[in-house]
Amino acid sequence: MKRTNYAGLIDESYLEQTVTLQGWVQKRRDFGGLIFVDLRDREGLVQLAFSEESSADALHLAEKIRAEYVIEVTGVVTARVAGQENPRLKSGKIEIKVTSASILAEAQTPPFEIGNAENVSDEMRLKYRYLDLRRPEMQQNLLVRSKITAATHAFLDANGFIDIETPILAKSTPEGARDYLVPSRIYPGSFYALPQSPQLFKQLLMGAGFDRYYQVARAFRDEDLRGDRQPEFTQLDVEMSFMTQTEIMALVNQWVQAIMAKTVNYDLAIDEIPTLDYADSMRRFGTDKPDMRFDMELQDLSTLMADAEFGVFANAIKNGGQVKAIVVPGAADKYSRKDIDKLGQYVERFGAKGLAWLKVTDDGITGPIAKFLTAKEAELLAATDAKAGDLILFAADKAETVAATLDALRRMTAKEMGLIDESKWAFAWIVNWPLFDYQAEEDRWISAHHPFTMPNEEDLDLLNSVESAHKAHAQSYDLVLNGYELGSGSIRIHRMDIQEKMLAALGFTKEAAHKAFGFLLEGMTYGFPPMGGIALGLDRLAMLLAGQDNIREVIAFPKNSKATEPMTEAPLPVAKVQVEDELGLKAPVYAENIAPNMAEA
Amino acid sequence: MKRTNYAGLIDESYLEQTVTLQGWVQKRRDFGGLIFVDLRDREGLVQLAFSEESSADALHLAEKIRAEYVIEVTGVVTARVAGQENPRLKSGKIEIKVTSASILAEAQTPPFEIGNAENVSDEMRLKYRYLDLRRPEMQQNLLVRSKITAATHAFLDANGFIDIETPILAKSTPEGARDYLVPSRIYPGSFYALPQSPQLFKQLLMGAGFDRYYQVARAFRDEDLRGDRQPEFTQLDVEMSFMTQTEIMALVNQWVQAIMAKTVNYDLAIDEIPTLDYADSMRRFGTDKPDMRFDMELQDLSTLMADAEFGVFANAIKNGGQVKAIVVPGAADKYSRKDIDKLGQYVERFGAKGLAWLKVTDDGITGPIAKFLTAKEAELLAATDAKAGDLILFAADKAETVAATLDALRRMTAKEMGLIDESKWAFAWIVNWPLFDYQAEEDRWISAHHPFTMPNEEDLDLLNSVESAHKAHAQSYDLVLNGYELGSGSIRIHRMDIQEKMLAALGFTKEAAHKAFGFLLEGMTYGFPPMGGIALGLDRLAMLLAGQDNIREVIAFPKNSKATEPMTEAPLPVAKVQVEDELGLKAPVYAENIAPNMAEA
Repeated sequence: MKRTNYAGLIDESYLEQTVTLQGWVQKRRDFGGLIFVDLRDREGLVQLAFSEESSADALHLAEKIRAEYVIEVTGVVTARVAGQENPRLKSGKIEIKVTSASILAEAQTPPFEIGNAENVSDEMRLKYRYLDLRRPEMQQNLLVRSKITAATHAFLDANGFIDIETPILAKSTPEGARDYLVPSRIYPGSFYALPQSPQLFKQLLMGAGFDRYYQVARAFRDEDLRGDRQPEFTQLDVEMSFMTQTEIMALVNQWVQAIMAKTVNYDLAIDEIPTLDYADSMRRFGTDKPDMRFDMELQDLSTLMADAEFGVFANAIKNGGQVKAIVVPGAADKYSRKDIDKLGQYVERFGAKGLAWLKVTDDGITGPIAKFLTAKEAELLAATDAKAGDLILFAADKAETVAATLDALRRMTAKEMGLIDESKWAFAWIVNWPLFDYQAEEDRWISAHHPFTMPNEEDLDLLNSVESAHKAHAQSYDLVLNGYELGSGSIRIHRMDIQEKMLAALGFTKEAAHKAFGFLLEGMTYGFPPMGGIALGLDRLAMLLAGQDNIREVIAFPKNSKATEPMTEAPLPVAKVQVEDELGLKAPVYAENIAPNMAEA
Repeated sequence: MKRTNYAGLIDESYLEQTVTLQGWVQKRRDFGGLIFVDLRDREGLVQLAFSEESSADALHLAEKIRAEYVIEVTGVVTARVAGQENPRLKSGKIEIKVTSASILAEAQTPPFEIGNAENVSDEMRLKYRYLDLRRPEMQQNLLVRSKITAATHAFLDANGFIDIETPILAKSTPEGARDYLVPSRIYPGSFYALPQSPQLFKQLLMGAGFDRYYQVARAFRDEDLRGDRQPEFTQLDVEMSFMTQTEIMALVNQWVQAIMAKTVNYDLAIDEIPTLDYADSMRRFGTDKPDMRFDMELQDLSTLMADAEFGVFANAIKNGGQVKAIVVPGAADKYSRKDIDKLGQYVERFGAKGLAWLKVTDDGITGPIAKFLTAKEAELLAATDAKAGDLILFAADKAETVAATLDALRRMTAKEMGLIDESKWAFAWIVNWPLFDYQAEEDRWISAHHPFTMPNEEDLDLLNSVESAHKAHAQSYDLVLNGYELGSGSIRIHRMDIQEKMLAALGFTKEAAHKAFGFLLEGMTYGFPPMGGIALGLDRLAMLLAGQDNIREVIAFPKNSKATEPMTEAPLPVAKVQVEDELGLKAPVYAENIAPNMAEA
């Protein structure tokens, strides 16, 4: 029998129709001779009613079935008895009076209930991922992800982009993070590397004249995992020739608009997407990925506090640092001294040494440091625009510490105070980035984005010496959504001389540069066009659009925080013959080889 | 300046318009004060005319530019002088009278001319792949591939399929070919494996209730390479729950119809796609992937020749073998005795011991064995329907050798005789396959497709013993196009008891079965729905639709026959620290580590 409908989509417009459904038993209630079953499929639930009007076989089946049995039923769509409606279901006004039914698969009692899995541990959810994914929330999450890629394919196809696949078995290059390696069997001791991005390949494709490329591309980084990192992740990767930064950003805006329309039915107003200089973003929000769903911008009080009586402030300025503050509206009553101490402990991780604060009352400022600031009270309130009932949080330190501290406090207190409009989608472009970043711990300069980023035209000469190079700014542009970096784009270097200078400024000898990137450098001597592009992180975008706070929720089979996949238990030791005889390597441990080798026809 | 048009798309409908173009210099002809340049972009060529009417700068530029320079020009679309038209170009009736121009990138002389690369070696083409890909033929090949995926996304999206990504870092399972392994850094001695297909994951997704899944999925096999094999390849992978083989085949027909319309503008008549039993395909064509663009079916002469005077034929039958023949129409004059000897040598690789043949003349059969067959001449000509002028080729041996020999001769002679209609797209379904295949060399049984293939319902009881299991037939269906297997599909086992019996018949102990596939077997006990699917080989499909005979022609950066990528030289040795310190392995050779480590922000 063929399915006529999805269970979750039947409503009163189908009354009196005979339908055939297939799905899973979510719940069964037996009233003796009258049995109700909630049938679940990917579109939702419908109530089945088995009674003496059903066939004897169907009624017998209804007595036998348990949660997660897979069944097929045929029946008539009927209005529920008045008072029995369920307004939370699309199908809540009807039920299916079953005439016939059959069991397609039995099920043992699952380790957790699909309809009641809120408190199941993450490991349990991943071990039984095929059950976890039956939950409507997870079905919805992966559906949102699928809609993003569908919108991407449709938009980019319509705009002349060619979908081109680049290798997964590639060359290890020293571009950024640690590579995953794949041993070669034909050349023992040689390795492929899994790509950290298709960056070099897409530049070569522009060199090959494809003009507009895209790929939904898997990328890999062998780094320690955080909440929004996975060993493998997916990029919506595009590259264009002969286009300026402005033109590329405009096209990406349209693309993102198409995604928002298809996934969350949101009409994104492109004109309202702000573009901020990197320096302004750091100044106003303390971060390069500002959450612009709310205000609470950082106020620079350095000038005001240079001669403050409060030594912490005055000394910070004296030592070349800053004093900045955020105002948390209406928070004076909500945060106890203990709560604020907790905030202070929290920001220690950013290098902050304690947290100075003030509450504003109708009678002026209060708090432990108020007495040191009475002379500046009026100026302070004017500068910060703080009102009675507000909480002012200060950071006084070197610029990076101030920025990191106030960025964290801004996001945390806004969330705790309910000041974030969760229905908002706040996109922003961050532009005019530095080309290099100084890593203090290692005392060296690295690429702010990656080594193939084009400097601003007017900064090209700065690359002539390694010293001045580090002052250059880049033609790069990051797209931010609700405080998350969605993607990082740039105009690329398309000339060998510039690329060589860039690599020199990163510490490469000419020999090392050509050993690592010779194919690209040589390519550039054969007429590479001006080009640029961007890669949007699909996992993060799907996470945000699905309303989740961890990318694991939008990946079908993610790894856990130990880079393990609990269902299959990968990675695992393999047989000695695979490692030693086939690959010419030695491993510290091997698995017993108990399975027969099954060749495929 | 923004591009207004693609060079290759400008024709006489743009006359008098001012256009701005960007592209590559393909050719430059200098007539002193009048310089013609062929400008190439991804859509084709257009002729630029530089003369004293151009700006002085533009004329100076025209004198300087060489092949593969990247330039930007603005000019007016003008009719060519009568007699100067080029009918092979869309833009052949016009030229661009250049007013201004600039150089976007210079180029040194490339190692081969883009417009004249027919005799460049494969290694050279792969080493300079970014130049090779500039050739219009390669641009077209990758465009066809992109159109296949675009049609696939559009069709499957419209039909309720959800695009779900499955892991690339997965578990090594003994399903078929050799796995590529990826060492784990966190668990030294443990390995991920790159998937040979998303088979198990897509079955788990059906178990999770997604109902209709698809993915353009990368897959990996560490096998020795042939013309149509690459270490990594791409599958158009679909899976559906609650559908029968017939329903799935009908849906795939529609999908393929959509692909053919979008890529080669061909209206595929679904009703005309034949469905052949595996046994019939082997009997009629000697292969499970028959090229049905032409006839020349195999004729079984075993009964007729059982008592033949010609000992080779009679003995083949006596030893339990067959005598079969193909008739090559009109080939009697075309094949000399020497040509036929060559065919005989060729089929030795299939185990054939020599090649018996006859030519049919107006006076009857001729050739070395004719004298032994005069008694059967009339019957032979009636049975084979051979006419004067035809060549008859025989195979007399055990069934597999006869099939392989005549399949090869059928395809080869049809091609040499020009009997194949190259404009035809001959799809066919091959069904009712054996579930197992006997491997004589290894004296053991393997899966004919893969170990998750559902037996025919009426054969389920055969699985109760390992001996009878090998007689079972499968619910599997292969799609064939022009003699190539495009994809292999099947209904899957969704019950643990059947899956356990299947693995037992393949030689797995119960312990080994659960060690290798425990997550799947356990999953099946929690209510897995009936399911089936198929994966179409994108590389092979693109190769056929682009009119190529090697999948390397439709892959941007393929590996060569040694699994090496000549442009980047991957795979390569890596630094000792990566292998020993990070992965806990030992390799026989290491690379010097000369590049600085560049972390990414």
